[in-house]
Amino acid sequence: MIIQKTENSRISTFDPNNFSFGNTFIDHMIICEYEDGKWGDVKLVPYGPLMFTPAMMGVNYGQACFEGMKAYKDKDGQVFLFRPEKNFERINKSATRLAMPEVTEEMFLDGLKALVDLDRGWIPSGEGMSLYIRPLIFATEEALKARVSNKYMFAIVATPAKSYYTEPVSVKISDHYSRAASGGVGSAKAAGNYAASFYPTQLAMDEGYEQIIWTDDATHEYFEESGTMNVFVRINDTIYTPPTSEKILDGVTRDSFIQLAKKRGIEVKVEPIPVKAVVEAQKNGTLKEVWGVGTAVVTTVFQALGYNGDKLQLPVLSDDESFAATLKNDLVNIQTNVAEDTFGWRVVVEKNVLETV
Amino acid sequence: MIIQKTENSRISTFDPNNFSFGNTFIDHMIICEYEDGKWGDVKLVPYGPLMFTPAMMGVNYGQACFEGMKAYKDKDGQVFLFRPEKNFERINKSATRLAMPEVTEEMFLDGLKALVDLDRGWIPSGEGMSLYIRPLIFATEEALKARVSNKYMFAIVATPAKSYYTEPVSVKISDHYSRAASGGVGSAKAAGNYAASFYPTQLAMDEGYEQIIWTDDATHEYFEESGTMNVFVRINDTIYTPPTSEKILDGVTRDSFIQLAKKRGIEVKVEPIPVKAVVEAQKNGTLKEVWGVGTAVVTTVFQALGYNGDKLQLPVLSDDESFAATLKNDLVNIQTNVAEDTFGWRVVVEKNVLETV
Repeated sequence: MIIQKTENSRISTFDPNNFSFGNTFIDHMIICEYEDGKWGDVKLVPYGPLMFTPAMMGVNYGQACFEGMKAYKDKDGQVFLFRPEKNFERINKSATRLAMPEVTEEMFLDGLKALVDLDRGWIPSGEGMSLYIRPLIFATEEALKARVSNKYMFAIVATPAKSYYTEPVSVKISDHYSRAASGGVGSAKAAGNYAASFYPTQLAMDEGYEQIIWTDDATHEYFEESGTMNVFVRINDTIYTPPTSEKILDGVTRDSFIQLAKKRGIEVKVEPIPVKAVVEAQKNGTLKEVWGVGTAVVTTVFQALGYNGDKLQLPVLSDDESFAATLKNDLVNIQTNVAEDTFGWRVVVEKNVLETV
Repeated sequence: MIIQKTENSRISTFDPNNFSFGNTFIDHMIICEYEDGKWGDVKLVPYGPLMFTPAMMGVNYGQACFEGMKAYKDKDGQVFLFRPEKNFERINKSATRLAMPEVTEEMFLDGLKALVDLDRGWIPSGEGMSLYIRPLIFATEEALKARVSNKYMFAIVATPAKSYYTEPVSVKISDHYSRAASGGVGSAKAAGNYAASFYPTQLAMDEGYEQIIWTDDATHEYFEESGTMNVFVRINDTIYTPPTSEKILDGVTRDSFIQLAKKRGIEVKVEPIPVKAVVEAQKNGTLKEVWGVGTAVVTTVFQALGYNGDKLQLPVLSDDESFAATLKNDLVNIQTNVAEDTFGWRVVVEKNVLETV
């Protein structure tokens, strides 16, 4: 690893009690360039601009995929990653589906640890606080021909994060727009999937909703995801989530929720969720909760579902009654080293990693 | 328009008889930045790198769309664009679907003409030669939050072009992968659509095909597009092409072929094309031609269709017998000012446009 530390740290300008999530960047970033069929040296450098022309294939043909993950600081100042090997595996699945080169474990995990260690001062501590980390791969060759790029960049950038989406939101069950095609790239964290979701989401917002529950594009009869999250439904005391597929992202938070629910003895059914079954359960009073899960927000609880022009209200549950709140709490306690980690999910970020790489 | 001409023209290094399409760039480019809800000045500047960080939203969330168009030089050295207003309309349709700001006619058409005029020396002349022009819009804000960007760049870059794909190719009729979802972004020239197509195309290549005929994602029973082109099928003396939709790009070459065919009195049916009807026509000998059309290659003729593991051969027609070749010839003759332009498609690029803008 080639290390170039900043001579102009911006950390004195960072107020952990008052910062903007997503556009406050830590001092450093990881970059690594792919050319002539192989990755070059991993470099830890000051965060900042690089040189790209508008012919960069990443913005012309969309070969670009990413991961979202977090580092947490416990009350003693120890720093942990959460199941980082899952993100490593997934970025390579995404890369393969987009005909991009896979990254190595060394690039991904060692780069991650070195960056988080060096900039650990940027990780805010306290409830809901974390460092949001964005590994990504994108095509960098300059060429105006719709083909696979010969040059790529792997990068890791990061921003301090606090929890957001704390209030329950209303979501529209999509009856026209969709997120993924059968035989498409829905299971990849492909950059283009996000851009495609913005306009339908804006239209849903115009109708008074905050997000969309995506349904299958052929019939709109089955739940797929919610916003940028995996979706869970609780009917009576059983929770349901759709199976992962080529249309549905294999979410790390989704998988963790399933395991945490099973540990608590909650019945979990991983099976297709018909929209009609959810609507019927709402009408007969057995629908208790619907929520989304993802790294950025952990959980977003839904207060109403938009369906066929109706706004179907969901019960208001206390945190004790809510499976969403209970499982979120279980997860966050593991992430932040408040509870024992019987799953082996936490990965400590050792101090002074750099001296050993 | 702000004009900054290069002081280091590279044109003396350009050999019009020996250059690489797609990565040879003309001396200048157009750029224009969007911020605070509005576009700034259009700038004509030397082609080259700009400063972007890996947190650029364009490569993280895929808000990026483009156009492909050409300028042609006739035997007298006059330069023409082809139906540029169609590309202007379409880039704004793409932008809207991706929740990006529309560009103005002034930015797009005046920028285009100024660039092509200034770098007219880069346009190779002769059969099949042209300047391939790439207008694009992409998100430039640095932010790690899946939301609509607040900053964008509109750019126009260009590369000298010669014809490619001159040989007939074999194409696989897709039975699993797909290009577009119902309710998705298939009708937009969204960057992400191209990245999504590369891996399935690689798999088809491994099976001995050059391209894919995309079919509907739900049933794979209907033709949609072919590679990055619109598709035409000729059965007996009638030609068929699927209607444009939210899944199928409204191609300029497609529209031109339809009009040229009608002018020649060829029957054109714009209607869904069942895979089974094509396969049946191949078996009973009424399938005469299948071809793709697009700006980059004008026409690619198919020699065989892969279906269910079989390679269905298509007849070999002379240029006189072939509707694809006849219509391509009609189109190219209009584009290059060899034939009268009864449609009003050609737009001359006046010399010294810059003095008037």
